[in-house]
Amino acid sequence: VRIAVLGTGEVGRAVAGALVGRGHEVRMGSRTGANEAAAAWAADAGERAGHGTFADAAGWAELVVNCTGGGVALAALRAAGAENLAGKVVVDVSNPLDFSHGRPPILSVCNTTSVAEQLQEAFPQARVVKTLNTVNNRIMVDPARLPGRHTLFVCGNDPEAKAAARGLLEGFGWPPEDVLDLGDLTAARGMEMYIPLWLRLMGALGGADFNIAVVRAEG
Amino acid sequence: VRIAVLGTGEVGRAVAGALVGRGHEVRMGSRTGANEAAAAWAADAGERAGHGTFADAAGWAELVVNCTGGGVALAALRAAGAENLAGKVVVDVSNPLDFSHGRPPILSVCNTTSVAEQLQEAFPQARVVKTLNTVNNRIMVDPARLPGRHTLFVCGNDPEAKAAARGLLEGFGWPPEDVLDLGDLTAARGMEMYIPLWLRLMGALGGADFNIAVVRAEG
Repeated sequence: VRIAVLGTGEVGRAVAGALVGRGHEVRMGSRTGANEAAAAWAADAGERAGHGTFADAAGWAELVVNCTGGGVALAALRAAGAENLAGKVVVDVSNPLDFSHGRPPILSVCNTTSVAEQLQEAFPQARVVKTLNTVNNRIMVDPARLPGRHTLFVCGNDPEAKAAARGLLEGFGWPPEDVLDLGDLTAARGMEMYIPLWLRLMGALGGADFNIAVVRAEG
Repeated sequence: VRIAVLGTGEVGRAVAGALVGRGHEVRMGSRTGANEAAAAWAADAGERAGHGTFADAAGWAELVVNCTGGGVALAALRAAGAENLAGKVVVDVSNPLDFSHGRPPILSVCNTTSVAEQLQEAFPQARVVKTLNTVNNRIMVDPARLPGRHTLFVCGNDPEAKAAARGLLEGFGWPPEDVLDLGDLTAARGMEMYIPLWLRLMGALGGADFNIAVVRAEG
């Protein structure tokens, strides 16, 4: 599958690298086609890797992964262009972190909406799936870093799009039984609103190498 | 220890019952001293149990547990009276659920504050500790309902108050190593903002008999 990864930060590079490693063709998209991080990544990542503007990458791709920050995701997808997203699965990995009031960040949207819902509303022909936002980028693409079972969440309005996203997750090593479908895209509120707890956990544990496992009563 | 449990709902009755079972003297507090649920609970729970107004219960108690809903917690503690809370540990179990817009509820406060912080601000001489709000009341007082290890969070500004709260939790059966201290009371934002995810998990799993376990990298 031809995949556009929007965003050239740690998350974008981790996801794009893992996708190339699983045999996908990947173009990393950025605001300007001449982004140095994207060029360096593509030069490093071999012949299945390329880069370009958000619109270049999205227009070429069959599936789009948004790895830009939640505060700029809407602008990034606007730059990608509605016509380049129409009908495509758009996997949204972002969190609406707002550092403008200092640290820890607050959320720029929450409670009554979410970044994922805003993207879906702005691009009704895209098939938005939320996943991967609840773990650090190293765990996103290598869940076996952590011992035993732990849980990843997925939600979205389009069952086929969720199935496509789950396929990518399985390629990253997520056992299907540990990927929990939370239903339609309004569940993205819960997935994004978990982040303040995640940030406090990171502080208490002294690092980002953790996740949560859902533990159920037996029987 | 003489403990006031404010609130006569499922959470209040579960917590009050468990405290009596561990040998504490408990008074259940309600808005009116003549609350039927509180009277029935106290009649059932034996000689260590009593009930009264919020002020009766808090004034008599050495430690207060707020089991009222987050939307009414501030009013309940005002009714209890600042003079009856001063110097005392106030364990806040509440969540700011607002059902006025339908289901699922939204949070009445979040992101930049929390119920626990609002209580602390309104009653600066109380020693507020947040805990137990991330699990169903049955799990609060019987963590062994779930198999294996799973995590409870605690936060607050007063280390002694947190130690007192941890003592109650240990009495409920929470292994100390599974009670994670997230730091000062601003962590209550994260603990309360986890609830929208909890609600979606309840929907996906078909019930409230679950919790999360924090899973860390080994080594």
